[in-house]
Amino acid sequence: MSWELPSRISLREVGPRDGLQHEDPITTDAKVSLVDALSMTGVERIEAVSFVRPSAIPQMADADEVWARINRSAAVRYSALVPNLRGAVRALDVGVTDLEVVVSASETHNLVNVNRTTGESLDELAAIVDMAHLRGATVEAIVSTAWGCPYEGEVAIERVLAAASRAVRDGADSVSFGDTTGMATPIRVRILVGAFRAMYPDTALNLHFHNTRGTGLANVLAALELGVADFDASVGGLGGCPYAPGATGNIATEELVHMAEDMGIDTGISLEALLEAAAEAERAVGHLLPSQVLRAGPRTRTITA
Amino acid sequence: MSWELPSRISLREVGPRDGLQHEDPITTDAKVSLVDALSMTGVERIEAVSFVRPSAIPQMADADEVWARINRSAAVRYSALVPNLRGAVRALDVGVTDLEVVVSASETHNLVNVNRTTGESLDELAAIVDMAHLRGATVEAIVSTAWGCPYEGEVAIERVLAAASRAVRDGADSVSFGDTTGMATPIRVRILVGAFRAMYPDTALNLHFHNTRGTGLANVLAALELGVADFDASVGGLGGCPYAPGATGNIATEELVHMAEDMGIDTGISLEALLEAAAEAERAVGHLLPSQVLRAGPRTRTITA
Repeated sequence: MSWELPSRISLREVGPRDGLQHEDPITTDAKVSLVDALSMTGVERIEAVSFVRPSAIPQMADADEVWARINRSAAVRYSALVPNLRGAVRALDVGVTDLEVVVSASETHNLVNVNRTTGESLDELAAIVDMAHLRGATVEAIVSTAWGCPYEGEVAIERVLAAASRAVRDGADSVSFGDTTGMATPIRVRILVGAFRAMYPDTALNLHFHNTRGTGLANVLAALELGVADFDASVGGLGGCPYAPGATGNIATEELVHMAEDMGIDTGISLEALLEAAAEAERAVGHLLPSQVLRAGPRTRTITA
Repeated sequence: MSWELPSRISLREVGPRDGLQHEDPITTDAKVSLVDALSMTGVERIEAVSFVRPSAIPQMADADEVWARINRSAAVRYSALVPNLRGAVRALDVGVTDLEVVVSASETHNLVNVNRTTGESLDELAAIVDMAHLRGATVEAIVSTAWGCPYEGEVAIERVLAAASRAVRDGADSVSFGDTTGMATPIRVRILVGAFRAMYPDTALNLHFHNTRGTGLANVLAALELGVADFDASVGGLGGCPYAPGATGNIATEELVHMAEDMGIDTGISLEALLEAAAEAERAVGHLLPSQVLRAGPRTRTITA
C-alpha cells in the first residue's frame, strides 16, 4: 500500500491566456480583474497573456495593456506565451521575465498554428532562448500535440522527444508537454514522461493536460506517481476545445487542487479563493464553465437532510 | 516502469436505472429501446430497472413492463436494484436473477433514502439474500456513501467496512462500494479497497464512481492499480447528481471504455456501438449529457487542416 507521491506540487494558472484565448473576447478590465483575483489564491505562477498578432487571436489584442495593469503579487511569477521571435521581442520589451514558446510536435498542427514547420519553430525557439537569456529572462519550451494531433492523429513519440531534445540542447530552461486536444491517457503519460526523464533527468518538466475526453485528472494521477510536480490548469476549466465544439479544454484548476489537497498534496492554493475567481471567470465569459467542483462544491460541502 | 493493471475489466451499465432515475421520466418504449441498444454494445451486465415504490421514484414506475419487454441478449446479465424485501419479492416474481440491494453506510442517507436505519436495512438485506438464494438468484450488496455522505460529510471507514462485512457474513454474493455524490479521491479508493481486500480477499468487488467533482476516472485508475476489474458506469454519463444541480453523476461508460481500451485493457465493448446508445440516451432525455467522449469523439477522430 505504499504510495510515493509528491508532497507538494506547483501549478501554473493558464486561464487568463489559454482559457480566454478560446472564449469570446472579454474586456481588458475583466481580464485584469481575473488575473488579480487569481493572484490572491496562493497560486505561484500565472500565464497572464500571449503576445501574438491581434489579427490571429483578437482575444489577446490588449496583451500589453493587461500586462501593464495587473496588480502584481510578489509571491507570483507572471509569464507570457509567445509564438515566435517577434512576439518574444514584444514580451521582453514590456518586461516579461518568464517566456513560454509553443512548438507542435505535429508538423500539420504547427503549420496551422504558426505558419511554420516544426523545424522552423525550433530554430526560432533557439534564437528566442539566446535573446531571452541575454536579457535575464527564462524560456519554457511547450511541446504541444505531445500525445496526438487533431489533424494527424497519432504523433510518434520520437518526434515529441526530438522536439523536446532540441529545445533542451538549445538552452530552454524547462520543458512542458501539452495534450492539446485531450488525447493522452495514463499509459501514454507514463511512457512519454518515462522516456523524457531517462534522457533529461535534471530538466524541469511541466505537464499541460486537457480534459477533452475525461482523462484529465487520471493523467495527472499517473504523472504524480512518476513524481511530476508541475502542472498547468485553467480556472473554472475556462477555454473549451476549438477542435470539438462543446467539449472541455484545460483541466480545471479547482478540480486539480481539490483532488490533490484531499490526497495530502500541498498546492499552496486556497480552494475557497480559487472558487471565487472561478465564479468571476464564469461571470466574465457569461456562460457556465465545465469545472465540476465549481458546480458541486468541495467534497466537504454538506446539505441539510 | 512496470505497471500491473488488469488485462480485462467487466463493466455494469447502470444508465437505464441509476441514470434515468435522476432524469425526468421518459416513456417505457424509450427505456426498452435504450436497454436494447446497450445489449448490442458488448457490455456484459446491465442494471435495467429498480423495483421501488412508484410514489418514491416515478421514473421506475413501469419497471415490470420494461423488464418484460427488453430484448434479452444471451451474452448479457440483466440486474435490478431493490431497496427492501418488498422490492425483492416483486423482482424475483418477475424473474430477476441478479439483485442489487443498496444500503448506505451513512445513517442519515439511509434514513432519507429508504426510511430505515442502516442496521434495519442490513437486517433486511440478510432476509433478501436468504430468499434470493432459495430461488436461485444472486444478491450484490451496494454500500453507498462509502466515501462520504452529502448530509453527514465524512463517513468513517469503520462504518463502511462494518456494513460490507455484515453483508458478506450474511451471504451476499458480491459487494459494491458506491461513491454516491462523488466524494472519493484516489487515495481514499486505495485505503478502502485495500482494507476490504485484506478482510475479504475472495469476495467479488465492484466499484461505483460518480464524477461529481471530476475525479471519476482518476479513481478508476487508482482501483485498476489495485487489480479491481469490475466497475459501474452510465451511458452518456446519464443521471446527474440530485444533491448538486448541474453537476454530473455516474462516470460515463464511453469515457471509461475509451480510457481503458487505449491502455490495452479489454472491456469487450464496442465504443462505436456505445456512442450510438449514448446518442440515443441523449435524444431520449432531451438534453446534452456530460460524457466528454460523446462530445469530442474518440482520440482517433481527426479533422481536416
